[in-house]
Amino acid sequence: MCAPQIIRQLGDIDETGRGRRAFLRAAGAAAAVAVAAPAVTARAEPGGVLDLTHVLSPQTPVWPGNPPFTAVPVAWEAVGGFAQNALALWEHTGTHVDAPAHRRGSATTDLLPAQDLVAPLVVIDIRDRAGTDPDAGVTVADLTEWEKRHGRIPDRAFVAMYSGWEQRLAVPGAFVNLDGHGIPHGPGFTAEAAEFLVSRREIVGAGVDTLSLDRAADRDYGAHTAFLGAGRYGVEMLANLGAAPPVGATVVVGAPKHIGGTGGPCRVLALT
Amino acid sequence: MCAPQIIRQLGDIDETGRGRRAFLRAAGAAAAVAVAAPAVTARAEPGGVLDLTHVLSPQTPVWPGNPPFTAVPVAWEAVGGFAQNALALWEHTGTHVDAPAHRRGSATTDLLPAQDLVAPLVVIDIRDRAGTDPDAGVTVADLTEWEKRHGRIPDRAFVAMYSGWEQRLAVPGAFVNLDGHGIPHGPGFTAEAAEFLVSRREIVGAGVDTLSLDRAADRDYGAHTAFLGAGRYGVEMLANLGAAPPVGATVVVGAPKHIGGTGGPCRVLALT
Repeated sequence: MCAPQIIRQLGDIDETGRGRRAFLRAAGAAAAVAVAAPAVTARAEPGGVLDLTHVLSPQTPVWPGNPPFTAVPVAWEAVGGFAQNALALWEHTGTHVDAPAHRRGSATTDLLPAQDLVAPLVVIDIRDRAGTDPDAGVTVADLTEWEKRHGRIPDRAFVAMYSGWEQRLAVPGAFVNLDGHGIPHGPGFTAEAAEFLVSRREIVGAGVDTLSLDRAADRDYGAHTAFLGAGRYGVEMLANLGAAPPVGATVVVGAPKHIGGTGGPCRVLALT
Repeated sequence: MCAPQIIRQLGDIDETGRGRRAFLRAAGAAAAVAVAAPAVTARAEPGGVLDLTHVLSPQTPVWPGNPPFTAVPVAWEAVGGFAQNALALWEHTGTHVDAPAHRRGSATTDLLPAQDLVAPLVVIDIRDRAGTDPDAGVTVADLTEWEKRHGRIPDRAFVAMYSGWEQRLAVPGAFVNLDGHGIPHGPGFTAEAAEFLVSRREIVGAGVDTLSLDRAADRDYGAHTAFLGAGRYGVEMLANLGAAPPVGATVVVGAPKHIGGTGGPCRVLALT
Protein backbone atom coordinates (compact mmCIF):
# COMPACT_ATOMS: atom_id res chain seq x y z
CA MET A 1 0.00 0.00 0.00
CA CYS A 2 0.95 3.61 -0.33
CA ALA A 3 0.20 6.60 1.87
CA PRO A 4 -2.56 9.03 0.77
CA GLN A 5 -0.19 11.99 0.59
CA ILE A 6 1.74 10.20 -2.13
CA ILE A 7 -1.41 9.11 -3.85
CA ARG A 8 -2.62 12.67 -4.17
CA GLN A 9 0.80 13.90 -5.28
CA LEU A 10 0.75 11.37 -8.07
CA GLY A 11 -2.36 12.87 -9.53
CA ASP A 12 -5.29 10.72 -8.46
CA ILE A 13 -7.49 13.81 -8.74
CA ASP A 14 -10.69 11.84 -9.13
CA GLU A 15 -10.10 9.84 -5.97
CA THR A 16 -13.08 11.11 -3.97
CA GLY A 17 -15.45 10.86 -6.88
CA ARG A 18 -14.36 7.33 -7.68
CA GLY A 19 -14.57 6.54 -4.02
CA ARG A 20 -18.15 7.64 -3.75
CA ARG A 21 -19.19 5.68 -6.79
CA ALA A 22 -17.37 2.59 -5.56
CA PHE A 23 -19.00 2.94 -2.16
CA LEU A 24 -22.44 3.14 -3.69
CA ARG A 25 -21.73 0.17 -5.92
CA ALA A 26 -20.41 -1.82 -2.99
CA ALA A 27 -23.34 -0.93 -0.79
CA GLY A 28 -25.79 -1.94 -3.46
CA ALA A 29 -23.90 -5.16 -4.13
CA ALA A 30 -23.61 -6.27 -0.53
CA ALA A 31 -26.49 -8.72 -0.77
CA ALA A 32 -25.12 -10.10 -4.04
CA VAL A 33 -21.73 -10.69 -2.41
CA ALA A 34 -23.37 -12.60 0.40
CA VAL A 35 -25.28 -14.76 -2.06
CA ALA A 36 -22.27 -15.34 -4.32
CA ALA A 37 -19.96 -16.31 -1.46
CA PRO A 38 -19.01 -19.98 -1.48
CA ALA A 39 -19.90 -22.08 1.52
CA VAL A 40 -17.06 -23.11 3.78
CA THR A 41 -13.96 -23.60 1.59
CA ALA A 42 -12.77 -27.19 1.41
CA ARG A 43 -9.56 -27.79 3.35
CA ALA A 44 -6.58 -28.76 1.18
CA GLU A 45 -5.48 -32.40 1.31
CA PRO A 46 -2.37 -33.15 3.39
CA GLY A 47 0.70 -33.63 1.20
CA GLY A 48 -0.51 -31.24 -1.46
CA VAL A 49 0.46 -27.82 -2.79
CA LEU A 50 -2.01 -25.04 -2.07
CA ASP A 51 -1.65 -21.89 -4.16
CA LEU A 52 -2.06 -18.78 -2.01
CA THR A 53 -1.55 -16.47 -5.01
CA HIS A 54 -4.09 -14.49 -7.01
CA VAL A 55 -3.80 -14.22 -10.80
CA LEU A 56 -2.35 -10.78 -11.56
CA SER A 57 -4.05 -8.81 -14.33
CA PRO A 58 -4.91 -5.23 -15.30
CA GLN A 59 -8.18 -5.80 -13.44
CA THR A 60 -6.49 -6.70 -10.14
CA PRO A 61 -7.58 -4.14 -7.52
CA VAL A 62 -4.74 -1.92 -6.30
CA TRP A 63 -4.32 0.49 -3.42
CA PRO A 64 -6.02 3.77 -4.38
CA GLY A 65 -3.72 5.86 -6.56
CA ASN A 66 -1.50 3.00 -7.68
CA PRO A 67 -1.68 2.16 -11.39
CA PRO A 68 -2.87 -1.20 -12.69
CA PHE A 69 -0.48 -3.94 -13.81
CA THR A 70 0.14 -3.83 -17.55
CA ALA A 71 1.63 -6.28 -20.04
CA VAL A 72 2.33 -5.38 -23.67
CA PRO A 73 3.52 -7.91 -26.28
CA VAL A 74 7.00 -7.20 -27.65
CA ALA A 75 7.71 -10.50 -29.42
CA TRP A 76 5.38 -12.86 -31.25
CA GLU A 77 5.94 -16.55 -31.87
CA ALA A 78 4.59 -16.24 -35.41
CA VAL A 79 7.26 -13.69 -36.29
CA GLY A 80 10.41 -14.70 -34.46
CA GLY A 81 9.57 -18.05 -32.89
CA PHE A 82 9.14 -16.73 -29.35
CA ALA A 83 6.44 -14.76 -27.55
CA GLN A 84 7.27 -12.21 -24.86
CA ASN A 85 5.60 -9.31 -23.04
CA ALA A 86 6.96 -6.10 -21.57
CA LEU A 87 5.66 -5.64 -18.01
CA ALA A 88 5.07 -2.40 -16.14
CA LEU A 89 3.88 -2.35 -12.56
CA TRP A 90 4.40 -0.78 -9.19
CA GLU A 91 5.95 -3.10 -6.66
CA HIS A 92 2.96 -3.35 -4.33
CA THR A 93 0.61 -4.94 -6.86
CA GLY A 94 -1.32 -8.21 -6.67
CA THR A 95 -0.21 -10.87 -4.20
CA HIS A 96 3.02 -9.18 -3.16
CA VAL A 97 5.76 -8.82 -0.59
CA ASP A 98 6.29 -5.77 1.60
CA ALA A 99 10.03 -5.69 2.29
CA PRO A 100 11.06 -3.92 5.50
CA ALA A 101 12.35 -1.02 3.36
CA HIS A 102 8.75 -0.24 2.35
CA ARG A 103 8.40 1.45 5.77
CA ARG A 104 10.86 1.94 8.62
CA GLY A 105 12.95 -1.20 7.98
CA SER A 106 16.24 -1.42 6.13
CA ALA A 107 16.14 -4.70 4.20
CA THR A 108 15.26 -4.44 0.53
CA THR A 109 14.00 -7.39 -1.53
CA ASP A 110 17.53 -8.45 -2.53
CA LEU A 111 18.46 -8.78 1.15
CA LEU A 112 15.59 -10.93 2.44
CA PRO A 113 17.19 -14.14 3.77
CA ALA A 114 16.06 -17.21 1.82
CA GLN A 115 15.71 -19.07 5.13
CA ASP A 116 12.93 -16.67 6.17
CA LEU A 117 10.89 -17.47 3.04
CA VAL A 118 10.11 -21.02 4.18
CA ALA A 119 8.12 -21.02 7.40
CA PRO A 120 5.39 -22.70 9.45
CA LEU A 121 2.08 -21.16 8.34
CA VAL A 122 -0.30 -19.92 11.03
CA VAL A 123 -3.76 -18.79 9.93
CA ILE A 124 -5.82 -16.49 12.17
CA ASP A 125 -9.43 -16.71 11.01
CA ILE A 126 -11.48 -13.55 11.63
CA ARG A 127 -13.87 -14.16 8.77
CA ASP A 128 -17.00 -14.11 10.88
CA ARG A 129 -16.20 -10.67 12.31
CA ALA A 130 -14.91 -9.27 8.99
CA GLY A 131 -18.15 -10.33 7.32
CA THR A 132 -20.06 -7.73 9.28
CA ASP A 133 -17.32 -5.17 10.07
CA PRO A 134 -14.98 -4.07 7.26
CA ASP A 135 -12.77 -2.38 9.86
CA ALA A 136 -12.27 -5.60 11.84
CA GLY A 137 -8.72 -6.22 13.04
CA VAL A 138 -6.67 -9.11 14.34
CA THR A 139 -6.28 -8.38 18.06
CA VAL A 140 -3.96 -9.73 20.74
CA ALA A 141 -7.02 -11.55 22.09
CA ASP A 142 -7.39 -13.31 18.72
CA LEU A 143 -3.79 -14.51 18.95
CA THR A 144 -4.07 -15.76 22.52
CA GLU A 145 -7.40 -17.43 21.70
CA TRP A 146 -5.70 -19.13 18.72
CA GLU A 147 -2.90 -20.35 21.02
CA LYS A 148 -5.42 -21.80 23.48
CA ARG A 149 -6.79 -23.97 20.66
CA HIS A 150 -3.67 -24.80 18.67
CA GLY A 151 -0.69 -24.29 20.96
CA ARG A 152 1.94 -21.59 21.00
CA ILE A 153 2.66 -19.92 17.66
CA PRO A 154 5.68 -21.85 16.32
CA ASP A 155 9.07 -20.13 16.22
CA ARG A 156 9.91 -18.58 12.85
CA ALA A 157 6.26 -18.75 11.82
CA PHE A 158 4.54 -16.74 9.09
CA VAL A 159 1.26 -15.50 10.59
CA ALA A 160 -1.57 -14.76 8.17
CA MET A 161 -4.93 -13.08 8.71
CA TYR A 162 -7.82 -14.78 6.92
CA SER A 163 -10.76 -12.41 6.63
CA GLY A 164 -12.50 -13.91 3.61
CA TRP A 165 -12.02 -10.61 1.78
CA GLU A 166 -11.33 -12.30 -1.57
CA GLN A 167 -15.06 -13.04 -1.93
CA ARG A 168 -15.36 -9.36 -2.75
CA LEU A 169 -13.25 -9.65 -5.91
CA ALA A 170 -16.42 -10.65 -7.77
CA VAL A 171 -17.93 -7.21 -7.21
CA PRO A 172 -16.23 -4.16 -8.75
CA GLY A 173 -15.08 -1.76 -6.04
CA ALA A 174 -15.93 -4.06 -3.13
CA PHE A 175 -12.34 -5.24 -2.53
CA VAL A 176 -10.82 -1.76 -2.18
CA ASN A 177 -14.10 -0.64 -0.55
CA LEU A 178 -13.72 3.15 -0.58
CA ASP A 179 -16.10 5.21 1.51
CA GLY A 180 -17.62 8.54 0.50
CA HIS A 181 -14.43 10.32 1.54
CA GLY A 182 -12.14 8.14 -0.58
CA ILE A 183 -10.92 6.15 2.41
CA PRO A 184 -10.57 2.39 1.88
CA HIS A 185 -12.00 0.02 4.48
CA GLY A 186 -10.78 -3.52 4.96
CA PRO A 187 -9.54 -5.80 7.74
CA GLY A 188 -5.93 -6.03 8.90
CA PHE A 189 -3.75 -6.41 11.97
CA THR A 190 -4.11 -4.01 14.88
CA ALA A 191 -0.85 -2.32 15.85
CA GLU A 192 -0.99 -4.11 19.20
CA ALA A 193 -1.26 -7.56 17.63
CA ALA A 194 1.63 -6.79 15.26
CA GLU A 195 3.76 -5.58 18.17
CA PHE A 196 2.88 -8.72 20.14
CA LEU A 197 3.99 -10.94 17.26
CA VAL A 198 7.38 -9.26 16.79
CA SER A 199 8.20 -8.77 20.48
CA ARG A 200 6.55 -11.69 22.28
CA ARG A 201 6.77 -14.33 19.57
CA GLU A 202 9.40 -15.25 16.96
CA ILE A 203 7.94 -14.67 13.51
CA VAL A 204 9.63 -14.21 10.13
CA GLY A 205 6.71 -12.41 8.51
CA ALA A 206 2.99 -11.73 8.40
CA GLY A 207 0.33 -11.81 5.73
CA VAL A 208 -3.18 -10.65 4.97
CA ASP A 209 -5.81 -11.47 2.34
CA THR A 210 -6.53 -7.74 1.94
CA LEU A 211 -4.52 -4.86 0.45
CA SER A 212 -2.87 -3.74 3.70
CA LEU A 213 -1.22 -5.28 6.76
CA ASP A 214 -3.08 -2.55 8.68
CA ARG A 215 -6.81 -2.13 8.75
CA ALA A 216 -7.13 -0.10 5.55
CA ALA A 217 -8.76 2.90 7.21
CA ASP A 218 -6.03 3.13 9.90
CA ARG A 219 -3.99 6.23 9.06
CA ASP A 220 -1.33 5.46 11.68
CA TYR A 221 -0.08 2.36 9.85
CA GLY A 222 0.93 0.84 13.19
CA ALA A 223 0.99 -2.75 11.92
CA HIS A 224 3.24 -1.83 8.99
CA THR A 225 5.51 0.04 11.38
CA ALA A 226 5.66 -2.84 13.87
CA PHE A 227 6.27 -5.61 11.34
CA LEU A 228 8.53 -3.87 8.83
CA GLY A 229 10.29 -1.68 11.36
CA ALA A 230 11.33 -4.84 13.20
CA GLY A 231 12.78 -6.30 10.00
CA ARG A 232 9.96 -8.71 9.29
CA TYR A 233 8.41 -8.88 5.83
CA GLY A 234 4.75 -8.80 4.91
CA VAL A 235 2.67 -10.36 2.17
CA GLU A 236 -0.55 -8.66 1.08
CA MET A 237 -3.46 -9.95 -0.99
CA LEU A 238 -3.00 -13.63 -0.21
CA ALA A 239 -5.51 -16.05 -1.75
CA ASN A 240 -7.16 -19.29 -0.64
CA LEU A 241 -6.27 -19.05 3.05
CA GLY A 242 -9.63 -20.64 3.79
CA ALA A 243 -8.27 -23.91 2.41
CA ALA A 244 -5.19 -23.84 4.66
CA PRO A 245 -5.16 -25.47 8.09
CA PRO A 246 -4.80 -23.17 11.15
CA VAL A 247 -1.33 -24.67 11.70
CA GLY A 248 0.71 -27.51 10.22
CA ALA A 249 1.35 -26.30 6.66
CA THR A 250 4.66 -24.84 5.47
CA VAL A 251 4.50 -21.64 3.46
CA VAL A 252 7.05 -20.89 0.73
CA VAL A 253 7.11 -17.21 -0.23
CA GLY A 254 8.56 -16.72 -3.72
CA ALA A 255 9.69 -13.21 -2.90
CA PRO A 256 11.17 -11.02 -5.63
CA LYS A 257 14.94 -10.43 -5.48
CA HIS A 258 15.57 -7.17 -7.31
CA ILE A 259 18.14 -4.76 -6.03
CA GLY A 260 16.83 -2.01 -3.78
CA GLY A 261 13.26 -3.28 -3.97
CA THR A 262 10.62 -2.32 -1.41
CA GLY A 263 8.52 -5.33 -2.40
CA GLY A 264 6.96 -6.94 -5.43
CA PRO A 265 4.63 -9.63 -6.74
CA CYS A 266 5.37 -13.08 -5.38
CA ARG A 267 4.17 -16.64 -5.80
CA VAL A 268 3.11 -18.01 -2.43
CA LEU A 269 2.63 -21.75 -2.02
CA ALA A 270 1.60 -23.70 1.05
CA LEU A 271 2.84 -27.27 1.41
CA THR A 272 -0.01 -28.93 3.29
CA MET B 1 15.46 -15.69 -24.64
CA CYS B 2 14.18 -14.10 -27.80
CA ALA B 3 14.81 -14.97 -31.44
CA PRO B 4 17.30 -12.83 -33.39
CA GLN B 5 14.71 -11.75 -35.96
CA ILE B 6 12.78 -10.06 -33.16
CA ILE B 7 15.89 -8.59 -31.67
CA ARG B 8 16.77 -6.89 -34.94
CA GLN B 9 13.18 -5.73 -35.50
CA LEU B 10 13.23 -4.05 -32.12
CA GLY B 11 16.09 -1.83 -33.12
CA ASP B 12 19.25 -3.30 -31.68
CA ILE B 13 21.14 -1.65 -34.51
CA ASP B 14 24.46 -1.76 -32.71
CA GLU B 15 24.23 -5.50 -32.08
CA THR B 16 27.22 -6.58 -34.15
CA GLY B 17 29.38 -3.76 -32.91
CA ARG B 18 28.54 -4.46 -29.30
CA GLY B 19 29.06 -8.12 -29.99
CA ARG B 20 32.55 -7.57 -31.31
CA ARG B 21 33.53 -5.43 -28.37
CA ALA B 22 32.05 -7.92 -25.91
CA PHE B 23 33.90 -10.74 -27.65
CA LEU B 24 37.18 -8.92 -27.42
CA ARG B 25 36.55 -8.08 -23.77
CA ALA B 26 35.61 -11.66 -23.02
CA ALA B 27 38.62 -13.06 -24.86
CA GLY B 28 40.91 -10.72 -23.02
CA ALA B 29 39.30 -11.52 -19.70
CA ALA B 30 39.37 -15.28 -20.03
CA ALA B 31 42.39 -15.70 -17.79
CA ALA B 32 40.86 -13.35 -15.21
CA VAL B 33 37.69 -15.45 -15.14
CA ALA B 34 39.71 -18.57 -14.53
CA VAL B 35 41.56 -16.89 -11.68
CA ALA B 36 38.44 -15.32 -10.15
CA ALA B 37 36.46 -18.58 -10.22
CA PRO B 38 35.82 -20.03 -6.80
CA ALA B 39 37.11 -23.50 -6.00
CA VAL B 40 34.53 -26.26 -5.73
CA THR B 41 31.35 -24.76 -4.27
CA ALA B 42 30.46 -26.04 -0.80
CA ARG B 43 27.43 -28.33 -0.80
CA ALA B 44 24.41 -26.95 1.10
CA GLU B 45 23.62 -28.53 4.47
CA PRO B 46 20.71 -30.98 4.55
CA GLY B 47 17.58 -29.39 6.01
CA GLY B 48 18.44 -25.93 4.74
CA VAL B 49 17.11 -23.53 2.13
CA LEU B 50 19.38 -22.93 -0.85
CA ASP B 51 18.65 -19.86 -2.95
CA LEU B 52 18.91 -20.63 -6.67
CA THR B 53 18.04 -17.05 -7.64
CA HIS B 54 20.30 -14.24 -8.85
CA VAL B 55 19.78 -10.69 -7.64
CA LEU B 56 18.01 -8.81 -10.45
CA SER B 57 19.38 -5.37 -11.32
CA PRO B 58 19.87 -3.06 -14.30
CA GLN B 59 23.30 -4.71 -14.68
CA THR B 60 21.87 -8.24 -14.99
CA PRO B 61 22.89 -9.62 -18.41
CA VAL B 62 19.95 -10.15 -20.76
CA TRP B 63 19.49 -11.94 -24.06
CA PRO B 64 20.86 -9.68 -26.82
CA GLY B 65 18.28 -7.08 -27.81
CA ASN B 66 16.24 -7.30 -24.61
CA PRO B 67 16.27 -4.17 -22.44
CA PRO B 68 17.67 -4.14 -18.91
CA PHE B 69 15.47 -4.32 -15.82
CA THR B 70 14.62 -0.87 -14.47
CA ALA B 71 13.21 0.38 -11.18
CA VAL B 72 12.23 4.01 -10.59
CA PRO B 73 11.12 5.37 -7.21
CA VAL B 74 7.52 6.62 -7.14
CA ALA B 75 7.00 6.96 -3.39
CA TRP B 76 9.41 7.97 -0.65
CA GLU B 77 9.11 7.11 3.02
CA ALA B 78 10.25 10.61 4.02
CA VAL B 79 7.33 12.16 2.14
CA GLY B 80 4.37 9.83 2.57
CA GLY B 81 5.58 7.19 5.00
CA PHE B 82 6.09 4.45 2.42
CA ALA B 83 8.72 3.74 -0.24
CA GLN B 84 7.82 2.15 -3.55
CA ASN B 85 9.33 1.68 -7.02
CA ALA B 86 7.79 1.40 -10.47
CA LEU B 87 9.24 -1.59 -12.31
CA ALA B 88 9.67 -2.07 -16.05
CA LEU B 89 11.04 -5.25 -17.51
CA TRP B 90 10.59 -7.81 -20.20
CA GLU B 91 9.39 -11.14 -18.95
CA HIS B 92 12.52 -13.14 -19.77
CA THR B 93 14.84 -11.20 -17.46
CA GLY B 94 17.04 -12.44 -14.61
CA THR B 95 16.30 -15.81 -13.03
CA HIS B 96 13.01 -16.41 -14.81
CA VAL B 97 10.39 -18.87 -15.97
CA ASP B 98 9.74 -19.80 -19.58
CA ALA B 99 6.05 -20.72 -19.71
CA PRO B 100 5.05 -23.11 -22.50
CA ALA B 101 3.41 -20.16 -24.31
CA HIS B 102 6.88 -18.63 -24.84
CA ARG B 103 7.28 -21.13 -27.73
CA ARG B 104 4.94 -23.77 -29.12
CA GLY B 105 3.09 -24.54 -25.86
CA SER B 106 -0.27 -23.19 -24.78
CA ALA B 107 0.00 -22.63 -21.01
CA THR B 108 0.63 -19.07 -19.91
CA THR B 109 2.01 -18.16 -16.47
CA ASP B 110 -1.46 -17.94 -14.92
CA LEU B 111 -2.15 -21.53 -15.96
CA LEU B 112 0.95 -23.28 -14.62
CA PRO B 113 -0.30 -25.84 -12.06
CA ALA B 114 0.97 -25.10 -8.56
CA GLN B 115 1.65 -28.82 -8.12
CA ASP B 116 4.28 -28.65 -10.88
CA LEU B 117 6.20 -25.90 -9.07
CA VAL B 118 7.34 -28.20 -6.25
CA ALA B 119 9.49 -31.02 -7.58
CA PRO B 120 12.46 -33.31 -6.98
CA LEU B 121 15.58 -31.44 -8.15
CA VAL B 122 17.98 -33.25 -10.47
CA VAL B 123 21.29 -31.52 -11.28
CA ILE B 124 23.26 -32.55 -14.36
CA ASP B 125 26.81 -31.27 -13.92
CA ILE B 126 28.62 -30.50 -17.19
CA ARG B 127 30.89 -27.88 -15.68
CA ASP B 128 34.12 -29.55 -16.71
CA ARG B 129 33.11 -29.66 -20.38
CA ALA B 130 31.54 -26.18 -20.34
CA GLY B 131 34.76 -24.76 -18.91
CA THR B 132 36.55 -25.43 -22.16
CA ASP B 133 33.65 -25.43 -24.67
CA PRO B 134 31.08 -22.61 -24.50
CA ASP B 135 28.88 -24.57 -26.92
CA ALA B 136 28.75 -27.63 -24.66
CA GLY B 137 25.34 -29.28 -24.36
CA VAL B 138 23.61 -31.73 -22.06
CA THR B 139 23.37 -34.92 -24.12
CA VAL B 140 21.33 -38.09 -23.76
CA ALA B 141 24.60 -39.76 -22.77
CA ASP B 142 24.93 -37.28 -19.87
CA LEU B 143 21.46 -38.25 -18.67
CA THR B 144 22.05 -42.00 -18.88
CA GLU B 145 25.43 -41.59 -17.20
CA TRP B 146 23.73 -39.60 -14.40
CA GLU B 147 21.18 -42.42 -14.00
CA LYS B 148 23.93 -45.02 -13.73
CA ARG B 149 25.30 -43.12 -10.74
CA HIS B 150 22.15 -41.85 -9.03
CA GLY B 151 19.29 -44.05 -10.21
CA ARG B 152 16.46 -43.28 -12.58
CA ILE B 153 15.40 -39.62 -12.81
CA PRO B 154 12.48 -39.36 -10.36
CA ASP B 155 8.97 -38.91 -11.72
CA ARG B 156 7.81 -35.28 -11.81
CA ALA B 157 11.41 -34.08 -11.47
CA PHE B 158 12.81 -30.69 -12.39
CA VAL B 159 16.05 -31.33 -14.29
CA ALA B 160 18.67 -28.59 -14.22
CA MET B 161 21.90 -28.17 -16.15
CA TYR B 162 24.81 -26.90 -14.07
CA SER B 163 27.52 -25.51 -16.31
CA GLY B 164 29.23 -23.14 -13.86
CA TRP B 165 28.37 -20.26 -16.19
CA GLU B 166 27.64 -17.84 -13.33
CA GLN B 167 31.39 -17.46 -12.70
CA ARG B 168 31.33 -15.29 -15.83
CA LEU B 169 29.08 -12.66 -14.24
CA ALA B 170 32.19 -11.03 -12.78
CA VAL B 171 33.44 -10.14 -16.27
CA PRO B 172 31.38 -7.72 -18.41
CA GLY B 173 30.22 -9.44 -21.59
CA ALA B 174 31.42 -12.91 -20.60
CA PHE B 175 27.99 -14.22 -19.54
CA VAL B 176 26.22 -13.38 -22.81
CA ASN B 177 29.47 -14.19 -24.64
CA LEU B 178 28.78 -12.77 -28.11
CA ASP B 179 31.10 -13.72 -30.94
CA GLY B 180 32.28 -11.41 -33.71
CA HIS B 181 29.02 -11.96 -35.58
CA GLY B 182 26.80 -11.02 -32.63
CA ILE B 183 25.92 -14.63 -31.87
CA PRO B 184 25.85 -15.59 -28.16
CA HIS B 185 27.63 -18.75 -27.04
CA GLY B 186 26.73 -20.62 -23.89
CA PRO B 187 25.83 -24.15 -22.78
CA GLY B 188 22.32 -25.61 -22.81
CA PHE B 189 20.36 -28.76 -23.48
CA THR B 190 20.68 -30.53 -26.81
CA ALA B 191 17.37 -31.07 -28.58
CA GLU B 192 17.83 -34.83 -28.20
CA ALA B 193 18.29 -34.64 -24.44
CA ALA B 194 15.22 -32.42 -24.08
CA GLU B 195 13.17 -34.82 -26.18
CA PHE B 196 14.41 -37.76 -24.08
CA LEU B 197 13.32 -36.01 -20.88
CA VAL B 198 9.80 -35.23 -22.07
CA SER B 199 9.14 -38.53 -23.88
CA ARG B 200 11.12 -41.13 -21.94
CA ARG B 201 10.98 -39.63 -18.46
CA GLU B 202 8.27 -37.80 -16.48
CA ILE B 203 9.50 -34.27 -15.79
CA VAL B 204 7.59 -31.13 -14.84
CA GLY B 205 10.26 -28.72 -16.06
CA ALA B 206 13.90 -28.04 -16.84
CA GLY B 207 16.39 -25.38 -15.89
CA VAL B 208 19.76 -23.95 -16.88
CA ASP B 209 22.28 -21.60 -15.28
CA THR B 210 22.67 -19.78 -18.61
CA LEU B 211 20.35 -17.49 -20.61
CA SER B 212 18.81 -20.22 -22.79
CA LEU B 213 17.46 -23.75 -22.42
CA ASP B 214 19.19 -24.36 -25.77
CA ARG B 215 22.86 -23.94 -26.39
CA ALA B 216 22.85 -20.21 -27.07
CA ALA B 217 24.31 -20.48 -30.57
CA ASP B 218 21.75 -23.10 -31.64
CA ARG B 219 19.41 -21.35 -34.09
CA ASP B 220 16.96 -24.27 -34.21
CA TYR B 221 15.88 -23.85 -30.58
CA GLY B 222 15.19 -27.58 -30.40
CA ALA B 223 15.35 -27.76 -26.59
CA HIS B 224 12.87 -24.90 -26.20
CA THR B 225 10.59 -26.60 -28.71
CA ALA B 226 10.82 -29.97 -26.99
CA PHE B 227 10.29 -28.74 -23.43
CA LEU B 228 7.76 -25.95 -23.96
CA GLY B 229 5.97 -27.61 -26.85
CA ALA B 230 5.31 -30.59 -24.56
CA GLY B 231 3.79 -28.30 -21.93
CA ARG B 232 6.77 -28.31 -19.58
CA TYR B 233 8.12 -25.05 -18.21
CA GLY B 234 11.70 -23.87 -18.13
CA VAL B 235 13.76 -21.75 -15.76
CA GLU B 236 16.75 -19.83 -17.10
CA MET B 237 19.65 -18.16 -15.28
CA LEU B 238 19.53 -20.30 -12.16
CA ALA B 239 22.13 -19.57 -9.48
CA ASN B 240 24.12 -21.68 -7.00
CA LEU B 241 23.40 -25.06 -8.57
CA GLY B 242 26.93 -26.07 -7.57
CA ALA B 243 25.76 -26.13 -3.95
CA ALA B 244 22.81 -28.44 -4.70
CA PRO B 245 23.10 -32.22 -4.49
CA PRO B 246 22.73 -34.21 -7.75
CA VAL B 247 19.45 -35.56 -6.37
CA GLY B 248 17.55 -35.43 -3.07
CA ALA B 249 16.62 -31.74 -2.80
CA THR B 250 13.15 -30.37 -3.53
CA VAL B 251 12.92 -27.31 -5.72
CA VAL B 252 10.17 -24.72 -5.25
CA VAL B 253 9.75 -22.46 -8.28
CA GLY B 254 8.09 -19.18 -7.33
CA ALA B 255 6.72 -18.71 -10.82
CA PRO B 256 4.89 -15.50 -11.72
CA LYS B 257 1.12 -15.73 -12.11
CA HIS B 258 0.13 -12.87 -14.39
CA ILE B 259 -2.57 -13.35 -16.97
CA GLY B 260 -1.37 -14.31 -20.44
CA GLY B 261 2.28 -14.31 -19.38
CA THR B 262 4.97 -16.09 -21.40
CA GLY B 263 7.25 -16.13 -18.35
CA GLY B 264 8.77 -13.81 -15.81
CA PRO B 265 11.24 -13.41 -12.95
CA CYS B 266 10.86 -16.02 -10.23
CA ARG B 267 12.33 -16.87 -6.85
CA VAL B 268 13.68 -20.40 -6.93
CA LEU B 269 14.49 -22.14 -3.65
CA ALA B 270 15.85 -25.62 -3.06
CA LEU B 271 14.92 -27.39 0.17
CA THR B 272 18.01 -29.50 0.81
